[in-house]
Amino acid sequence: MSRALSPRTVRLHAEDNVVVAVDTVDVGASAGGVVARQRVPRGHKLATVAIPAGAPVVKFGQIIGFATVDIAPGDHIHSHNCAFQTFDRDYAYGADARNDMVLPPELQATFEGYRRPDGKVGTRNYVAILSSVNCSASVARFMAEAINRSGVLADYPTIDGVVPFVHGTGCGMAASGEGFEVLKRTQWGYATNPNVAAVLLVGLGCEVFQIARMKDEYGIVEGDHFQTMTIQETGGTKKTIEQGMERIRAMLPIAARARRETVPASELMLALQCGGSDGYSGITANPALGAAADILVEHGGTAILSETPEIYGAEHLLTRRAESRAVGEKLVERIRWWEDYTAKAGGSMDNNPSPGNKAGGLTTILEKSLGAAAKGGTTTLRGVYEYAERVDRKGFVFMDTPGYDPVAATGQVAGGANVLCFTTGRGSAYGCKPTPSIKLATNSDIFNRMIDDMDINCGDILEGVSIADKGREIFNKILQVSSGEKSKSEELGYGDNEFVPWQIGATM
Amino acid sequence: MSRALSPRTVRLHAEDNVVVAVDTVDVGASAGGVVARQRVPRGHKLATVAIPAGAPVVKFGQIIGFATVDIAPGDHIHSHNCAFQTFDRDYAYGADARNDMVLPPELQATFEGYRRPDGKVGTRNYVAILSSVNCSASVARFMAEAINRSGVLADYPTIDGVVPFVHGTGCGMAASGEGFEVLKRTQWGYATNPNVAAVLLVGLGCEVFQIARMKDEYGIVEGDHFQTMTIQETGGTKKTIEQGMERIRAMLPIAARARRETVPASELMLALQCGGSDGYSGITANPALGAAADILVEHGGTAILSETPEIYGAEHLLTRRAESRAVGEKLVERIRWWEDYTAKAGGSMDNNPSPGNKAGGLTTILEKSLGAAAKGGTTTLRGVYEYAERVDRKGFVFMDTPGYDPVAATGQVAGGANVLCFTTGRGSAYGCKPTPSIKLATNSDIFNRMIDDMDINCGDILEGVSIADKGREIFNKILQVSSGEKSKSEELGYGDNEFVPWQIGATM
Ligand SMILES: [Ca+2]
Ligand SMILES: [Ca+2]
Ligand SMILES: [Ca+2]
Ligand SMILES: [Ca+2]
Ligand SMILES: [Ca+2]
Repeated sequence: MSRALSPRTVRLHAEDNVVVAVDTVDVGASAGGVVARQRVPRGHKLATVAIPAGAPVVKFGQIIGFATVDIAPGDHIHSHNCAFQTFDRDYAYGADARNDMVLPPELQATFEGYRRPDGKVGTRNYVAILSSVNCSASVARFMAEAINRSGVLADYPTIDGVVPFVHGTGCGMAASGEGFEVLKRTQWGYATNPNVAAVLLVGLGCEVFQIARMKDEYGIVEGDHFQTMTIQETGGTKKTIEQGMERIRAMLPIAARARRETVPASELMLALQCGGSDGYSGITANPALGAAADILVEHGGTAILSETPEIYGAEHLLTRRAESRAVGEKLVERIRWWEDYTAKAGGSMDNNPSPGNKAGGLTTILEKSLGAAAKGGTTTLRGVYEYAERVDRKGFVFMDTPGYDPVAATGQVAGGANVLCFTTGRGSAYGCKPTPSIKLATNSDIFNRMIDDMDINCGDILEGVSIADKGREIFNKILQVSSGEKSKSEELGYGDNEFVPWQIGATM
Repeated sequence: MSRALSPRTVRLHAEDNVVVAVDTVDVGASAGGVVARQRVPRGHKLATVAIPAGAPVVKFGQIIGFATVDIAPGDHIHSHNCAFQTFDRDYAYGADARNDMVLPPELQATFEGYRRPDGKVGTRNYVAILSSVNCSASVARFMAEAINRSGVLADYPTIDGVVPFVHGTGCGMAASGEGFEVLKRTQWGYATNPNVAAVLLVGLGCEVFQIARMKDEYGIVEGDHFQTMTIQETGGTKKTIEQGMERIRAMLPIAARARRETVPASELMLALQCGGSDGYSGITANPALGAAADILVEHGGTAILSETPEIYGAEHLLTRRAESRAVGEKLVERIRWWEDYTAKAGGSMDNNPSPGNKAGGLTTILEKSLGAAAKGGTTTLRGVYEYAERVDRKGFVFMDTPGYDPVAATGQVAGGANVLCFTTGRGSAYGCKPTPSIKLATNSDIFNRMIDDMDINCGDILEGVSIADKGREIFNKILQVSSGEKSKSEELGYGDNEFVPWQIGATM
């Protein structure tokens, strides 16, 4: 453990009354602009101003607890002088909602995107082969492989690829209820994501997830951009591949007509993800991504926070930021749903700081959850969505998903996300299609060790780069990647195996 | 509806006292060796001998109900004269267990298989790349694609392929309990299936399904045939692909040493599957496959029946055939488990004949379930296994799985199945690796329509081919395919997308 004479600290937000120690701060050392009155271990908090008993302790620009005694500048803040009050049972709907400033269109940043017929904007231009059921997964892949092998895509440089989105479910499931609805929304969400120019949906024929029923329930009319077929109607594997390839070949010139044009950043819908988190996630990459999300919201765009299990027990963080009671209550309703879901599976929700968390400097469940939620920034919560539901609000929103990366991201992409940022400390290799994924390393070590996978190093925040500057760097990267620059995971070819719809309910 | 003068019927088993009408049988027509006393619609049953009130009605060689009145030869048998008695609440453990004849080794049929160091015999010789979690799925596929593209496999004609077995789970799950154990058994079952010569298991590093823990719990020592690595330890995607390919290249000459030799049919472990069933399944392909299973058991081999939801409510069929009370009770315990599993998911188990089933000629739940269970033949039940559990008994056994084809077959292959037969009426395109799958069409129409997918037509049973003859044809095909002849689904390249471990529990 280093004991620097000028120990490093991180200020996570301008409104904070604490800094986080990067190096251990000894008594008498100068850190964060004050002189330490107690020893502050790495990862722990140091008061930078006086905080009277009962006043909020603010980290990430948000309340993580309240002073239980008068706290002086330079004091170590932890369980001995900071705690929840009744805050943990008070949803205080909308208490912290603000009239967030949104720049007028002429001042908004821009990127080069594909404007679709429905007005939405894509950052990529893919042709998708969806499968209704695992039983047609191989056929979907065979078609995509044959198209790619044929070399025909060389004639269409504006098409990013023909991608099979296959999965393990679609039959042996209840034909109604939550599990069915989730799969239906996910499929239709991928089909209509603005990064997808045209779609072939291929089924077996006798599966529970009937294509005809999906078309009926959404009022889908087949045409140049969306077609369906089944193996059983077509007469087996070979004929399905042949006829499917013909249909895709006919879609290619149509998809290839798309041209990038200059559009405002307000057309971006950013999926926020973290996976393989470490002790740095909450003080480097996540708050930096939150700063980028705040900039995007300022420019009229949308940022989707998810991963409900990671904010469990601290949903008050979000209900306070809700624009209305209804928005906040929808979140609480999802929290209750999760309690029921995990109880039925014989588990339970528990996101309290563990002894290890406490030793690492996390004082309250709010602070722990803020480490994950920090990537959502600080603006007003404009909407709460169920998994894979179409996101129809601008600004900061929440979508209910598991924390498991591919399942969470699949829901966000189905909701309409056209760009994704993923923070990781231990080193995830995640990549996505049709939505480009930008990978943010929480520390310089993992950035350098996995240099071929990581797009941005947030570890330099520990060396003095400010969260605000890093947020601007991320925002600029989002604009570049959205304009066509390939992210690292795209260069590597990721995205053909990460379509994982959330499976809810029994497999029969 | 045809009304032939000599209407066709099918006798499903030599011990049956009924035949099934293939064409409608009019009063006075000669059918099944008797003269019809009532009109018998297609798919319905006709008594071929006198059945006194209280005596069993036998179809598939097994009791489907009891006469409620005296039944004369030529009578139509249905709900009006046939019903359960208390049979439906009496498990009668072992009542029908027999000392099934098993041929001495010198009289057993043979095939050409790969004898493995542990004594088990493979029918194929694959190198497997397993992934511990979806987060390493793409890397596993990248390795396999690079190996295949490199052309190196041309030097090893005895290797059937380098196959990535990837899936959607492995994290965002409970770290103990049923869901974890099922995934663990499935992974290790694939790694040790005799059709797999060597294995590379690749993980991300921070997932719930920890490779180190799996090695520890099974006492696995790495060596020439089994190696593991993680993306995080190796330093990212590119290095993992490079080092993984090196390891696979080193495994290839070792795997390639395997040579086929003549071995007895007792080394075969046959997975029984049906999917996309139709009204003919229960009277053509399923009983024909059951006849083949009976032959295999006679030759000392193993046949695994599964798909618990399809025998639900008629588990008495199997408990009566159990070799001991303990074997029968294990089945009943699984039945109770399913009631709990589906109830927790807000569903219920129900396999009773529907009005449509009844109109089609199915009188009792026993009869309906026998349509599915008929593929298990008629021999004594030697063991009951949980999903993906290693099958260690010869003869006829049951493995608890869902009915959903890829999930069911994945459990059977994990249990050790080295060959698979799959009946289908509506036309499934299923194929499997590492275990070859033989597809049996229940009717000539689907056989001809999907001629590139179907291996054997059982529809000709309706034209007079006997179940026994068709069973011998299937058994011979099993021997040929097990000796290296490619099945249709292998020719088409199926098997890279059908590894679907059963997911039990909440996705967090
Ligand atoms: Ca997370
Ligand atoms: Ca995550
Ligand atoms: Ca079945
Ligand atoms: Ca089925
Ligand atoms: Ca099945």
